Amino acid sequence: MSNLTEEKRTRLKSILGEEKVFFRDEDKMDSATFLSYGLDRTKTYSPDFDILAFPRNTKEVSEILKFAYETDMKVVPSGGRTGYAGGAVAKEREIVVSLSKMDQVLDFDPFFASIKVQAGMITKNLHKEVEERGFYFPVDFSATGSSHIGGNIATNAGGVRVVHYGLIRQWVLGLTVVTGTGEILEFNGEILKNNTGYDLKQLFIGSEGTLGIITECTLKLTKKPLDHRVLFTAVPDYPSILELFKETHNVRVPLLAFEFLTRYCLDKVIDHLHVPDPFSESSPYYVLMEFEIGETSDEEKLFGFLETILEKGYVTDGSLAQNSRQAETFWKYREGISESISLDYTVHKNDISLPLRNMNPFLEDLMALLGKEYPDFEVALFGHIGDGNLHLNMIKPSNLADKDFFAKCKEVDPHMFALLQKHHGSISAEHGIGLLKKEFLHFSRSSAEIEIMRKIKQSLDPKNILNPGKILP
Amino acid sequence: MSNLTEEKRTRLKSILGEEKVFFRDEDKMDSATFLSYGLDRTKTYSPDFDILAFPRNTKEVSEILKFAYETDMKVVPSGGRTGYAGGAVAKEREIVVSLSKMDQVLDFDPFFASIKVQAGMITKNLHKEVEERGFYFPVDFSATGSSHIGGNIATNAGGVRVVHYGLIRQWVLGLTVVTGTGEILEFNGEILKNNTGYDLKQLFIGSEGTLGIITECTLKLTKKPLDHRVLFTAVPDYPSILELFKETHNVRVPLLAFEFLTRYCLDKVIDHLHVPDPFSESSPYYVLMEFEIGETSDEEKLFGFLETILEKGYVTDGSLAQNSRQAETFWKYREGISESISLDYTVHKNDISLPLRNMNPFLEDLMALLGKEYPDFEVALFGHIGDGNLHLNMIKPSNLADKDFFAKCKEVDPHMFALLQKHHGSISAEHGIGLLKKEFLHFSRSSAEIEIMRKIKQSLDPKNILNPGKILP
Repeated sequence: MSNLTEEKRTRLKSILGEEKVFFRDEDKMDSATFLSYGLDRTKTYSPDFDILAFPRNTKEVSEILKFAYETDMKVVPSGGRTGYAGGAVAKEREIVVSLSKMDQVLDFDPFFASIKVQAGMITKNLHKEVEERGFYFPVDFSATGSSHIGGNIATNAGGVRVVHYGLIRQWVLGLTVVTGTGEILEFNGEILKNNTGYDLKQLFIGSEGTLGIITECTLKLTKKPLDHRVLFTAVPDYPSILELFKETHNVRVPLLAFEFLTRYCLDKVIDHLHVPDPFSESSPYYVLMEFEIGETSDEEKLFGFLETILEKGYVTDGSLAQNSRQAETFWKYREGISESISLDYTVHKNDISLPLRNMNPFLEDLMALLGKEYPDFEVALFGHIGDGNLHLNMIKPSNLADKDFFAKCKEVDPHMFALLQKHHGSISAEHGIGLLKKEFLHFSRSSAEIEIMRKIKQSLDPKNILNPGKILP
Repeated sequence: MSNLTEEKRTRLKSILGEEKVFFRDEDKMDSATFLSYGLDRTKTYSPDFDILAFPRNTKEVSEILKFAYETDMKVVPSGGRTGYAGGAVAKEREIVVSLSKMDQVLDFDPFFASIKVQAGMITKNLHKEVEERGFYFPVDFSATGSSHIGGNIATNAGGVRVVHYGLIRQWVLGLTVVTGTGEILEFNGEILKNNTGYDLKQLFIGSEGTLGIITECTLKLTKKPLDHRVLFTAVPDYPSILELFKETHNVRVPLLAFEFLTRYCLDKVIDHLHVPDPFSESSPYYVLMEFEIGETSDEEKLFGFLETILEKGYVTDGSLAQNSRQAETFWKYREGISESISLDYTVHKNDISLPLRNMNPFLEDLMALLGKEYPDFEVALFGHIGDGNLHLNMIKPSNLADKDFFAKCKEVDPHMFALLQKHHGSISAEHGIGLLKKEFLHFSRSSAEIEIMRKIKQSLDPKNILNPGKILP
């Protein structure tokens, strides 16, 4: 523990209080728990750090960062650690600052419909707090039981209903952040309109902890949909997916989700979860749609919509869930994919985005590339296709060792990213860049943009102590 | 024309072509028309510039900026010039770059529902282009017949339906900008999700031309509301406005607008437009609401809502427009205010924003201040109160000379801004900072924030040639 002198230890304890700071070589916390605060869901990195702090408020975060700034120590903000890009990994003896004790509601405005909370609040708890107050916070995805709202903002989280509600960026009214010098910045607070120069808070949304630690946030709220209906359809070819999505613009019932999976994915779910095939005939693609409904006439509109898309041939089969249980069952075919594939196979994941209309040409190029170089690779495709967001999972052929498979994936990735660039896509739709994709950032951002990002980083974190090594190559 | 040598003249002509560049001392354009390109709706500044360029595309804008960068000349981007903050004023011999010849549709995606246009397209023409394609672009306000879409983005425009559709920021998918070095940056283009580092395009939205010239934009589109209904109500006191807005969250019919005016404003409209008083009894406040409706049952919901708010005493009177003509008439009482006051009186305007629940304490403080110092000032209050946005117009007492009135307003403004700061408001909700409010920026942004803004400006416009003197004090 070369960088941890007795003096630093004592100072940190005096800044925060004994109970809020943990050292690796003490007995206060077991080693596995301690180290887990410096690791996310990318299991490829080994955490290595000596100091773990649990501040209770913005001022304490600021004190830690001032200390780090003065003593030239690095800092990694630690949220719910549900990321897939290594953005929360501490492996360079950084101070890990966990926000998990900062989970209080600070304010609630029932008139304007907003809530202010500390950034360490678990997303599902936020949902609960909001619903108890008669409102709804619509950003939702599978990791909400662990993820922090601050982490969601730091990674500009999306989820399953982006097609209707947008990304979390759209719901952030105000932010409090602490920069790399320990300075506290408060943006906007409770107002919606503030055209007074550059909207700096937008920089922190999606910055993966590299510009500042988000400590508090004010979120806009909405009302929970009264009810919803799920429509599960079989789609004969890719152009029909485009036409189908286009047709949803005319339904006049809000579209909450537009999710896609291939036959390959459906087979895997049927095998793994031992559920029946929901369709009598096989089809290359399936689309699951969720609609908000308010009254009986909305349901009639959905039956009309189904009739239209069947008549026009955009779908060859489709059924509208008759009750919420059936709706849940339909969702299982989409939500079960990741688990079904990951548990039964070795998988290399990619979370990419493309203009909807460029998706087919991209996939044709990709399949040609794989067919030529890796004919035994299989690909599981699914995702939030209404947002142009595709989860592209490559499956290890059974005759290949894990090591060889991942080595080959590493070879394929840059070629795939080049194809994404060609078709105007992004190498990371939702997961971010973190450590995992920083060497490929240039496929999505120009060198001029990367240079500007560096300068912004330099302005807010002049000593490069905040989550160093993440995002920027 | 000290800074305009023969050599520069020749070079500019050769860069753009003779027909795209005008010099003040030539006969090609009359002087008044020429100078109008360097002035917005703030009539307090006198334009003074020698060169006016009309580029046709991004590359030409880049060429002009490279030229300006090399020759140390300043540049003012010129859009529809409908601003109220002096953001488009050229009075320091800058090159004025008018975007008005850049008004073409570049791309349209009917599947994802987006359109790409050049930034000089007039907003109303954009609306038309979009509606011809079966879609709807919801950012709308009174100046759309002149304003450019690029200018709307550069000032993060709002308008009357922000309460439902948000500010223009929410509708910008992609941007092409040219920075102060002539570098062309293309952000995001056609994709919704791109979590690959800092979202730089957000910096340009609302930057008032100080970081780059927006040359192209890709906008998300939606569907036009099938129909709408207008509800005009009399509200007895300020707390009832809060309760009324809160109650709208429960209507389950989309609220498109929530506008407010005082009795004083209503009187002025009645006088000026010679229209009847829409209410039988006088009330201190009025709220006009617009709702989207899709079918008969929605109308029933609105009648139920009106019954509820009458019963609860949030409104003392209210009527629901029975047809679109009556709806238009109701809107006149709101939209006619600015004209009615400005034509009959000398007015000092302010466009401010506050948390809804802080508005009454702020107004009480303000009235106390005015009552003490300027007891003969009258105040016309109206605005998009659902967004916390208030238009606060001070009216010149008849016994005061214009000059003395404006001098007194100049005295009042900082006190009012200090009250805004106290109540967590903003000195500019929609109009921006420009030249007009830059000395007051510190009431809404901390010195740390202003310092960061300067660094960002420095990164994107190292020679400070882009709209210099705007925003930053």
